[in-house]
Amino acid sequence: MLVSCPIPKLDFDTINLGHGSGGVLTSQLLDAGVFRLLGNDLLDKKHDGAIFTLQGKVAMSTDTYVVSPLFFEGGNIGDLAINGTVNDLAMCGAAARYLSLAFVLEEGLKMEQFWEILQHIKAASEAAGVQIVTGDTKVVERGKGDKIFINTTGVGEVHQKAAIGMENIKPGDKIVLSGPLARHGITIMSHRQGLQFETTISSDTRPLNKIVLTLINEFGKDIHLLRDPTRGGLATVLNEIAVGAGLGITISQRDIPVEEEVYGACEMLGLDPLYVANEGLFVAIVDASVSDQFLFQLKQWEHGAMACIVGEVTNEHVRQVLMKSNIGGRRVVNMLAGEQLPRIC
Amino acid sequence: MLVSCPIPKLDFDTINLGHGSGGVLTSQLLDAGVFRLLGNDLLDKKHDGAIFTLQGKVAMSTDTYVVSPLFFEGGNIGDLAINGTVNDLAMCGAAARYLSLAFVLEEGLKMEQFWEILQHIKAASEAAGVQIVTGDTKVVERGKGDKIFINTTGVGEVHQKAAIGMENIKPGDKIVLSGPLARHGITIMSHRQGLQFETTISSDTRPLNKIVLTLINEFGKDIHLLRDPTRGGLATVLNEIAVGAGLGITISQRDIPVEEEVYGACEMLGLDPLYVANEGLFVAIVDASVSDQFLFQLKQWEHGAMACIVGEVTNEHVRQVLMKSNIGGRRVVNMLAGEQLPRIC
Repeated sequence: MLVSCPIPKLDFDTINLGHGSGGVLTSQLLDAGVFRLLGNDLLDKKHDGAIFTLQGKVAMSTDTYVVSPLFFEGGNIGDLAINGTVNDLAMCGAAARYLSLAFVLEEGLKMEQFWEILQHIKAASEAAGVQIVTGDTKVVERGKGDKIFINTTGVGEVHQKAAIGMENIKPGDKIVLSGPLARHGITIMSHRQGLQFETTISSDTRPLNKIVLTLINEFGKDIHLLRDPTRGGLATVLNEIAVGAGLGITISQRDIPVEEEVYGACEMLGLDPLYVANEGLFVAIVDASVSDQFLFQLKQWEHGAMACIVGEVTNEHVRQVLMKSNIGGRRVVNMLAGEQLPRIC
Repeated sequence: MLVSCPIPKLDFDTINLGHGSGGVLTSQLLDAGVFRLLGNDLLDKKHDGAIFTLQGKVAMSTDTYVVSPLFFEGGNIGDLAINGTVNDLAMCGAAARYLSLAFVLEEGLKMEQFWEILQHIKAASEAAGVQIVTGDTKVVERGKGDKIFINTTGVGEVHQKAAIGMENIKPGDKIVLSGPLARHGITIMSHRQGLQFETTISSDTRPLNKIVLTLINEFGKDIHLLRDPTRGGLATVLNEIAVGAGLGITISQRDIPVEEEVYGACEMLGLDPLYVANEGLFVAIVDASVSDQFLFQLKQWEHGAMACIVGEVTNEHVRQVLMKSNIGGRRVVNMLAGEQLPRIC
């Protein structure tokens, strides 16, 4: 169980506007909560910013997390806020090092809930090996927010062997998917619909930095691109790649891993797993010469058992993604149009 | 007039949930708006993060801007979001270089308003000499946000001569304030109260990086600390310094610059200018040996005419701020308690 620290003694049970004033209440909340829990040499300086050094090329990524509900099977907004930004940096070939953490709290948020989220942030930071070094806390009036929104922005050092870029993709490259699709989105959607399944479906939120950096260290420039198929799902990411590289992509439906209960839930909810968000997966475009070896390595990872080569890059049907269906046909897979699942992350 | 680009042709007059989906609508919004307006080599890569290099010590700072109203005399949420983070980095002795930009948009936000804010972001970035290199756009349902919240996180290189830190403050140091107090807070408050003054009071939002870096270049380690008195005002910042340095601070009311109309508005609104937020000021704790010269230089700056030495550091009344009043008495100036002006920035 992650949550163990008792909630600090504060004068209020809920967040009020004074906690965003920059004055005494802000200071009490931060001292008793954030600094006590997340403290480290850099954060403890309590300056307007943190100072550190970074070697070589630096990657920077930002995301604001507005997921609803705040807690769900397999994770919560705190885990997502850390893992999501760590993973975006990993997709740049970078090892996340330092994160900023900024809250927009709604007046009336239960202190207990804020405390629980903070503890998950701490645990997720430790698991990913990153430090939170600077932050911000704002409070908005009741009805002007939704409990809590969290922005994290991360910086990290790009691996020296990394050569990730659309321009490196070429026809014949293989498309590797690190695990089964659609778990995160289906978990959130089931919560909202109040659905129960025989087996528990849980979010796949997790940090990808260790496995990704290990693979970059081994395969270097043969990894041409990395992307995590979050909002918009695999279909949207592959379309972005096809457009960005100015090449075509062909995938095979039969090779795309989807767990049985997730597939069943997708059917029930009328969702196509190709468009459902994931939080712990990545797509790698790798040189065909190393793809089998890359897949073999990936499968050694604790979450890599279902990793698969799902397709390849081609110089035909440029800027389009085509899928060979299970029954032998071929269809165009478009980018997500409209909104399937609002506030998934 | 800053706003000149015509609004791009989009299929919608207002933001809807699809604009946060990560799919087609997100892509259209970003391509037509954000990327077209703010584009640069790094942002144009449209990856999950940006990659660049930074030399030496790096400073990082984050803030989420939730100011209400979005537009006010002298500025708007877009200006604040750039200037505020640039200034936080300047207070670390760093020249802001790269910023991330993350939006939480409320469903129903007028596209025209979003576009206007984007243009102010562009203009403010250019004025401050920073690049927006990565970003995020989320949309929340109507009533779950308030039009627009903006997070910016910045990184920059710390000036080689900078030696800023609480530990460098010593008794005898002079406290320099760069300009007159309370303009930003009074501007926002007047808007909310629907007050009209004979003279227009406008926010002091502006980038401080150029003047601050120039001063650091000249005075180096004789600048012991820099802080911008935003939320909580001058009183709160001085209290943080007294506590952080473990020393006392004495200020003189007579020396603290407040413009006449601002002072009048404070009286009318029942506010103490010491606690009102500023967005374009800084406090410098400087070695007494250079304080006159420092002030002289600061006064050459276009916004420095009213800069003043407002007090000094002492080893008496440790961790407390005392003010000599105009009528000769001395009183303790505490940190802001509770909330004076919610959502000031």
